[in-house]
Amino acid sequence: MRIALDAMGGDHAPAVTVAGAVAAARRLGVGVALVGARPAIEAELAKHQTAGLDLTIVEASETIGMDEHPAQAVRRKPNNSISVATRLVKEGQAAAVVSAGNSGAMMAAALFVLGRIKGIDRPAIATVFPCTGGQVLLIDVGAITDPDPANLVQFAQMGDIYLRAVFGVARPRIGLLSNGEEPTKGSKLVQEAHALLRQQPGLNFIGNVEGKDVPAGLADVVVCDGFAGNVLIKTAEGVATYIRQVLREEVTRTPWHTLLALGLRGAFRRVGARLDYAEFGGAPLLGVEGVVIIAHGRSNARAIENAVRVARQAAEQGTVAAIRALSPVIA
Amino acid sequence: MRIALDAMGGDHAPAVTVAGAVAAARRLGVGVALVGARPAIEAELAKHQTAGLDLTIVEASETIGMDEHPAQAVRRKPNNSISVATRLVKEGQAAAVVSAGNSGAMMAAALFVLGRIKGIDRPAIATVFPCTGGQVLLIDVGAITDPDPANLVQFAQMGDIYLRAVFGVARPRIGLLSNGEEPTKGSKLVQEAHALLRQQPGLNFIGNVEGKDVPAGLADVVVCDGFAGNVLIKTAEGVATYIRQVLREEVTRTPWHTLLALGLRGAFRRVGARLDYAEFGGAPLLGVEGVVIIAHGRSNARAIENAVRVARQAAEQGTVAAIRALSPVIA
Repeated sequence: MRIALDAMGGDHAPAVTVAGAVAAARRLGVGVALVGARPAIEAELAKHQTAGLDLTIVEASETIGMDEHPAQAVRRKPNNSISVATRLVKEGQAAAVVSAGNSGAMMAAALFVLGRIKGIDRPAIATVFPCTGGQVLLIDVGAITDPDPANLVQFAQMGDIYLRAVFGVARPRIGLLSNGEEPTKGSKLVQEAHALLRQQPGLNFIGNVEGKDVPAGLADVVVCDGFAGNVLIKTAEGVATYIRQVLREEVTRTPWHTLLALGLRGAFRRVGARLDYAEFGGAPLLGVEGVVIIAHGRSNARAIENAVRVARQAAEQGTVAAIRALSPVIA
Repeated sequence: MRIALDAMGGDHAPAVTVAGAVAAARRLGVGVALVGARPAIEAELAKHQTAGLDLTIVEASETIGMDEHPAQAVRRKPNNSISVATRLVKEGQAAAVVSAGNSGAMMAAALFVLGRIKGIDRPAIATVFPCTGGQVLLIDVGAITDPDPANLVQFAQMGDIYLRAVFGVARPRIGLLSNGEEPTKGSKLVQEAHALLRQQPGLNFIGNVEGKDVPAGLADVVVCDGFAGNVLIKTAEGVATYIRQVLREEVTRTPWHTLLALGLRGAFRRVGARLDYAEFGGAPLLGVEGVVIIAHGRSNARAIENAVRVARQAAEQGTVAAIRALSPVIA
């Protein structure tokens, strides 16, 4: 199986994308098509031992920057690395596409090249988040800011399929993000979605969950509109950064404290690792005709490797076909 | 000056409410009217040195539980401690009301007894939050889940007034919570509010801010709908709890680590204090005809004391009159 990787995407590309691809090819035995500027990719590959690894380069003459307008850039630059990588999926030459580049451009390319799955009104971006007891899948975290209640039901169904397939959760508990536990709490959107979700026989819907319940691991899938989901993940990121900063200040207040903290360095590092998005392998765009994984723009090689691993898992487990099979349920 | 305190409100009432009132009376020299069941309050007061302190008891024969339907409970129990305390403000016998009880009931009582300030369409709950460089005021955090863009402009104006008056911030930077920095980002609500906020000459509007920018202290006032604001504060609370738990697990993994961590106990405690909501003194309900401070249900005595301090400050600084003076601007 081969995964198409946008070698030019992300803050530290192509160094970390190539390093991540090499690690994925070696450790997971997966093929990776590195898509982008051949000379730059070759220069990076030369820094690694690649003998016997299934690594290929697919030339893409253009690159989309992080600040470019997604849809316009995808249209104006037909040979950008994201679109070329996505076309490999469309043409059956790759089982999935991974990009740590402009996430809006990845979405636009997925919609233009692969298209929506029939019956899915709006694709959504899901993300996996560390929490007490393991991980929680949040869907949507930014694909659509003003969904309707029926969209949220589809998000729940897609999240359910993805978590079963990729994380092996048998019967995911589905929660609806709200500002209170009671069914009467929430915006109009959430109240209507709550009523619809209760009627879905296939879903293990546990009702509303609050922001504090997400890190507490009360649900396996948390359904929300892309605006609230985006606020949630970015707030979590910001709070973690802030706490780390406060902690660093306090444990280095005196030389004695600094010495003690030095002895706990390993423990602090493990805390960091447990909170690290890089371990969870990127955010799937669900509802399009192909496996698409959006990695964090600040991805390191380990994050890229994990994104490739998750992409392979999603492809092997047939998440796209499973979502396609929802259509009769939905229609 | 006297503050009316709902002595029966909160998870640990009346023990912590009375203890907080005693501390406030002693340290701040403020008068506190303890409103609730006289025998229970007297029993708690007997545990403290109260000679020379301006503490009075005002009998309220009924109490509203945390799980009761707010508006119904306020109507059915006219002599509940929250309503009685609020009437003291209405009648000029107290300068402000503080409750750590059922926050919906506090809102309902404020609307029934005090009423909205003319020209303010929807009162909002603001809350103060620790962040890099000090504190940030978030408004709204749950009073109204589906505001319109004009409501958000009023939230910005009220937040601006409150932060100047109570925290002495000279020219608060006003940010609008969104899922991206660009003015084109956000839900329809946020995009329309953005356009309106740019036109307000009196406000130092700095544009959109993201969830991660709130703990980073990029704005002094962050304006949002009550749904997103509630998600934000509860996510921050949940993430802080989760990180504390992960940290505790990692620094106590071996006896040696535990010993080192013991030496850093003071530092860890200071981290906790810096993240503690109790230091910030509760959430003002802005837009009603009186100073109303909603304290956290889990308030300890220190949180109650700080809520009383903030209530006095808001009353002394004339925040209600200042918001009232907005009317011509708004109309």
